[in-house]
Amino acid sequence: MSMMASPSLAERYLAVRAQTMRLCQGLEAEDMQVQSMPDASPGKWHLAHTTWFFERFVLAGDSRYRIAEPDWHYLFNSYYQTVGPMHARPQRGLLSRPTLAHIHAWRARVDEAMATRLADAVDPAQAATVELGIQHEQQHQELFLTDILHAFWSNPLRPAYDAALSVQARPCAPLRYVPGREGLVEIGHAGDGFAFDNERPRHRTLLGPHALANRLVSQAEYAAFVQDGGYRKPPLWLSDGWAVVQREGWTRPLYWSEDLTAQFTLAGEVALLPDAPVSQLSFFEADAYARWAGARLPTEMEWEAGAQTLPVAGNLLEDRPRLPQSAVGEGLLQMYGDLWEWTASPYVGYPGFKPLPGSLGEYNGKFMNGQWVLRGGSCATPAAHIRATYRNFFPPHARWQFAGLRLARDI
Amino acid sequence: MSMMASPSLAERYLAVRAQTMRLCQGLEAEDMQVQSMPDASPGKWHLAHTTWFFERFVLAGDSRYRIAEPDWHYLFNSYYQTVGPMHARPQRGLLSRPTLAHIHAWRARVDEAMATRLADAVDPAQAATVELGIQHEQQHQELFLTDILHAFWSNPLRPAYDAALSVQARPCAPLRYVPGREGLVEIGHAGDGFAFDNERPRHRTLLGPHALANRLVSQAEYAAFVQDGGYRKPPLWLSDGWAVVQREGWTRPLYWSEDLTAQFTLAGEVALLPDAPVSQLSFFEADAYARWAGARLPTEMEWEAGAQTLPVAGNLLEDRPRLPQSAVGEGLLQMYGDLWEWTASPYVGYPGFKPLPGSLGEYNGKFMNGQWVLRGGSCATPAAHIRATYRNFFPPHARWQFAGLRLARDI
Amino acid sequence: MSMMASPSLAERYLAVRAQTMRLCQGLEAEDMQVQSMPDASPGKWHLAHTTWFFERFVLAGDSRYRIAEPDWHYLFNSYYQTVGPMHARPQRGLLSRPTLAHIHAWRARVDEAMATRLADAVDPAQAATVELGIQHEQQHQELFLTDILHAFWSNPLRPAYDAALSVQARPCAPLRYVPGREGLVEIGHAGDGFAFDNERPRHRTLLGPHALANRLVSQAEYAAFVQDGGYRKPPLWLSDGWAVVQREGWTRPLYWSEDLTAQFTLAGEVALLPDAPVSQLSFFEADAYARWAGARLPTEMEWEAGAQTLPVAGNLLEDRPRLPQSAVGEGLLQMYGDLWEWTASPYVGYPGFKPLPGSLGEYNGKFMNGQWVLRGGSCATPAAHIRATYRNFFPPHARWQFAGLRLARDI
Amino acid sequence: MSMMASPSLAERYLAVRAQTMRLCQGLEAEDMQVQSMPDASPGKWHLAHTTWFFERFVLAGDSRYRIAEPDWHYLFNSYYQTVGPMHARPQRGLLSRPTLAHIHAWRARVDEAMATRLADAVDPAQAATVELGIQHEQQHQELFLTDILHAFWSNPLRPAYDAALSVQARPCAPLRYVPGREGLVEIGHAGDGFAFDNERPRHRTLLGPHALANRLVSQAEYAAFVQDGGYRKPPLWLSDGWAVVQREGWTRPLYWSEDLTAQFTLAGEVALLPDAPVSQLSFFEADAYARWAGARLPTEMEWEAGAQTLPVAGNLLEDRPRLPQSAVGEGLLQMYGDLWEWTASPYVGYPGFKPLPGSLGEYNGKFMNGQWVLRGGSCATPAAHIRATYRNFFPPHARWQFAGLRLARDI
Repeated sequence: MSMMASPSLAERYLAVRAQTMRLCQGLEAEDMQVQSMPDASPGKWHLAHTTWFFERFVLAGDSRYRIAEPDWHYLFNSYYQTVGPMHARPQRGLLSRPTLAHIHAWRARVDEAMATRLADAVDPAQAATVELGIQHEQQHQELFLTDILHAFWSNPLRPAYDAALSVQARPCAPLRYVPGREGLVEIGHAGDGFAFDNERPRHRTLLGPHALANRLVSQAEYAAFVQDGGYRKPPLWLSDGWAVVQREGWTRPLYWSEDLTAQFTLAGEVALLPDAPVSQLSFFEADAYARWAGARLPTEMEWEAGAQTLPVAGNLLEDRPRLPQSAVGEGLLQMYGDLWEWTASPYVGYPGFKPLPGSLGEYNGKFMNGQWVLRGGSCATPAAHIRATYRNFFPPHARWQFAGLRLARDI
Repeated sequence: MSMMASPSLAERYLAVRAQTMRLCQGLEAEDMQVQSMPDASPGKWHLAHTTWFFERFVLAGDSRYRIAEPDWHYLFNSYYQTVGPMHARPQRGLLSRPTLAHIHAWRARVDEAMATRLADAVDPAQAATVELGIQHEQQHQELFLTDILHAFWSNPLRPAYDAALSVQARPCAPLRYVPGREGLVEIGHAGDGFAFDNERPRHRTLLGPHALANRLVSQAEYAAFVQDGGYRKPPLWLSDGWAVVQREGWTRPLYWSEDLTAQFTLAGEVALLPDAPVSQLSFFEADAYARWAGARLPTEMEWEAGAQTLPVAGNLLEDRPRLPQSAVGEGLLQMYGDLWEWTASPYVGYPGFKPLPGSLGEYNGKFMNGQWVLRGGSCATPAAHIRATYRNFFPPHARWQFAGLRLARDI
Repeated sequence: MSMMASPSLAERYLAVRAQTMRLCQGLEAEDMQVQSMPDASPGKWHLAHTTWFFERFVLAGDSRYRIAEPDWHYLFNSYYQTVGPMHARPQRGLLSRPTLAHIHAWRARVDEAMATRLADAVDPAQAATVELGIQHEQQHQELFLTDILHAFWSNPLRPAYDAALSVQARPCAPLRYVPGREGLVEIGHAGDGFAFDNERPRHRTLLGPHALANRLVSQAEYAAFVQDGGYRKPPLWLSDGWAVVQREGWTRPLYWSEDLTAQFTLAGEVALLPDAPVSQLSFFEADAYARWAGARLPTEMEWEAGAQTLPVAGNLLEDRPRLPQSAVGEGLLQMYGDLWEWTASPYVGYPGFKPLPGSLGEYNGKFMNGQWVLRGGSCATPAAHIRATYRNFFPPHARWQFAGLRLARDI
Repeated sequence: MSMMASPSLAERYLAVRAQTMRLCQGLEAEDMQVQSMPDASPGKWHLAHTTWFFERFVLAGDSRYRIAEPDWHYLFNSYYQTVGPMHARPQRGLLSRPTLAHIHAWRARVDEAMATRLADAVDPAQAATVELGIQHEQQHQELFLTDILHAFWSNPLRPAYDAALSVQARPCAPLRYVPGREGLVEIGHAGDGFAFDNERPRHRTLLGPHALANRLVSQAEYAAFVQDGGYRKPPLWLSDGWAVVQREGWTRPLYWSEDLTAQFTLAGEVALLPDAPVSQLSFFEADAYARWAGARLPTEMEWEAGAQTLPVAGNLLEDRPRLPQSAVGEGLLQMYGDLWEWTASPYVGYPGFKPLPGSLGEYNGKFMNGQWVLRGGSCATPAAHIRATYRNFFPPHARWQFAGLRLARDI
């Protein structure tokens, strides 16, 4: 293997790191401290954990680099059992120290060391780890936003992350079904570009006759489901979903007001936008809606087959609305960006799946139980981070992500 | 459709009902009352619930039949939301009334009415419902045994269900891998015989090159995994599995003694049988063992492709050992009977899956979340109940079933 | 010390044991198996535990006696840490074996051995232990009834323990306040008769000017509290009580129907009896009612001072109503029997309190935390078991006992 | 009633408010945000809640005062049900907004308004409320320190609140017992000075012959209890205490290191100080120690009788060690300051107890269940806040307070 052109890697590294910092603008030290539920992490922790990734997996192996605070590795390891024990996830919000200022200083120190490191040639294995760290940080950019949104929603004052954010209210395209590819199709990642281990190997799969909806389900459409008693009819729900509806008292999407007129967003509390897609849905809700609508969720294979030929473009993080917006146009819309789309596919390994060797093998494979695949990225996903083969996954009750749904049906 | 030959249906009905009663031999009224955990049900409840099924879905529609105790329908409905509310599952063990004697009397009354009913011609829809009730009762025969086993295990006195049960200690066949079918294969049920809705439709699926182990993993093999520290090594486990291991303090199979010399069975506490298959495993344990062994679990498609051409024969309920026994012989062994086999397939609907119409549509489809498929039946499964297309399913932490594993690998 | 006249002890032993058996009449083996909540025990367990007490503390020390089933000591020890480990309390309902028939046989065997043992002279220490065992069994007679009542209430069929039980509906005496004794009074037990360690030592206490209500609070009076919104007004409740009201959704006494017209009793579901006392109240409810009524609960010292000169007579177990009945007459009524009366006194040791030596010291003293004293016995208390100095105790949220309240006030 | 000399009230108000601010020195915004358990509150919340008390109960009734942020009343009401709903206690740590800076500004604004208000004459009722607010803020000064100590202890980095704090290591006085007063003694508060409602009315109580230890139990003495297996012997513990020991895995005081050599304090992790008193004990531990030592805890009446004639002086907040120190000297030592002393008295109302009228009646009375009285103040208690009649109270499992124990015995 030849050495990678590391300078461009350095540039990309620094650009992604800078993007993370931009997301913190307007947030106070207290905002960065809060952990509003065990599934979410404090903003400060995201800054620290992504930094730990580079220090632990790249710099720690470099004899010229000195780890200033070895104790922090215990605090900011997330779930890599093979590199040592870790702080209990639900207690991340208790770590007032190191302070935000100390984490910023650490980030700067690590960035400087990384820049030095990447100024030299790096071997392919090292480059791959840096690339993984970059992708990892991009994932945490989205989590940073979803977690701060949940934290602010947990505060009765309902502070806005950025009150200046907004989307244009435009009529969305009428719902139509677009026939998908049928027969043996190839899915999964191949070739040189970056992909997570769970996107590999590229393989053939057999698709039946089906069609995908041209766009995401809108807020108006979902409101009709709520008003029709959707949350009170057991036959619409999976059994586990109905149990959650009962136990948690679900009656509408997490961030919608009781009277179905307002929703909580990164722009604060705003009116429902009938033509914009419904967001922050769990799989259970998406699945129930699809059943109510006489349709179903697409499988991830159907989704990927539909997305393969489309340009990777849409309402993504860099476009800055950070709210999903109305679908406008012809053909398959919103396949990338706006919202992650729940699929009918449980998250398992592809035939022949091999986790990465070593500790980084803990990245994806060990989570292949009890989760469902989402596809396509959202308005909080960096554009450089998404692709047709990308497989996101969450448990079926998770509601705080930028997740919505697209309908599908057999034809 | 022509009318079914109902006399044979009547005979089968009565035979299955009688088989249930035989399973109760040697049990006291108190044994039939106990619910040892929310996932299990009292023996008495199984007797009542299976009777309710026939009264509710067959007899209730017959104007000549009088429901003597309408209140019991609330008590013995399991999870059919569309036919009315139901008693809370974890409280089934609190129902001292109706007594066992009353349930027996009810069974007799329902059986008499059913016999009368089936003496006449029944239309295909009614026959299908009776058939479903028969299959349903057969499922509960196995649950009856797994639940009473758990109840007895929960008693420090460790009573035996039947101390006379035993298996012959024979050396098991050496572990070998048998290549499976590759390419497009058909799986799923077609044709006239009974099958659950989740076995349909028959469809094509694409299999890669693979091999199945010739037999189930033995107790000696699993003991080696335990002794090698299998329950203390996070990299062997799925993340959710490792969380359960930690939280529940798992160190060995549920019914094994701490010193790995004895196991609790329907015959009471007996020595480990090194050549017999390891039983009462969860999916998490099966999956971890496979990883430790450098192999994987088969997919349900691979399993079914392997089983299609084999005769449905093995150590099944009627053979009466009610313990799994050593695999002896050539070729793919133990595909039917002995133990259910965990597969690498999450339980979801087949392409084009349609639940049964009406309330019976709640039978299978609504559980398609968070569970894994098991195949092949066990020593507690009636022979007439199992077939190549049969899909059983349980959550990944469930340990109290007659479940083991067969290894597979890519070739 | 002189040897006690053991024959009379033998007669009392056998009489109390026989009384326990009479309470089982009409109950099925299944009824005796059920444990409806962790605080309650199965009827069978009560039969076994009281038998264990005599075998463990009396017979086990006798070289002529052979313990047939040593394993049962683990099962039927309740909380005596110093005599060995014990089965987990919440799992008592899982012990289908030994069966009820076996427990009956064990009781007979122990009774025979005890009769033989008591036919001879016994030394005072042994006699005291037998006496404690008799008192212990009497306590369990009441618990047997309260627990079976709760078990039947937990069954949607609401079976009656004995449908023939009833009380006469008579107008109760008007509520009046009877001045109590003031100044230094002596309370607590002295002299030769049996008393628990927690009733000792007799000591002086200082009482202020106060009056006790002449009778228990009636169902009509309590219904007025409910109808006045008593369960919705936080200022009426202790903080911990209000938390329970909110968490458990309390809106009325445990066994009252939602429409306040019926109540569940040992006679099954019967109409509210406006003049009979309200029963099955928690301390929190009693305390809230008293506050609503502009009064307070009596202290246990005030109660005892009031009861000292009254004959021990009332609606007790042997009178067989097993429901509380209307207070009729003059003076302080219902001080004994009908219902235990919650007092304003936390359960702590008297000045100079000394637990019994050895294992029997675990009987009372270790529970002196977080409980409140009740006085006077109930319709489920054996007459020979109650006295002015008797101190019963339960946690403040416990609702399933025969407990009501009498008002008091400063004057 | 005459008007109070309000200027001195103003001075005291401002002095107490300034003292609170001094306690924040060295803490970062993040430290003030953390809630380490539901029983504790964030430092910021303490600052806000004490300010809310004055705004709500004093300023809100003043037509010249404008409440800038009415929404904050919901956030910072603690438990006053009668003044409106309140934020859920366990979620106080989620309130990143208002920020610490905003709370500081609010405090300044309220202080300015209060100073203006108190510059004029205030009527006695108003003065009493201000006085209550001052006492309330003093209580929160101690809670502020105990809560930040717990928060820092919850951080694996174990930050020090103030590393410069220290105590002198001096041999403590030998343990001796000092006879207490016997017979009828008066306790409780009378007269003009401030006291909480729960200290009233002054009344007579009867004390038996007893003696109090001359000082608190030392760390060396408590270490001997631990080393003797104190945490492994059920007979030493109340039943509820033993349940907590088992469930929580208690093996030593909360802040002691596993090897019994170090303890966590406001000065950070420091060596055990054998002669200094053992601190941060629960009632259960104090009670078990006393039983092990062949002694008992004093009743609150015995304690108060012993303290009545002593000057209110000791190691209190203003002395600044903020760690308990060795007892030196003759007579009853450490009665005030160093550590709160658990007593053998459940927290209930005195005979004739009347809560304050109105909402402030929720201050004390509604907590009279399930808690035990502590007496004497600690090194975190302001000197002006403590007195002989002062009754503190906590649940028996609470371990994070500056609480220790003094032995007592009957003589």
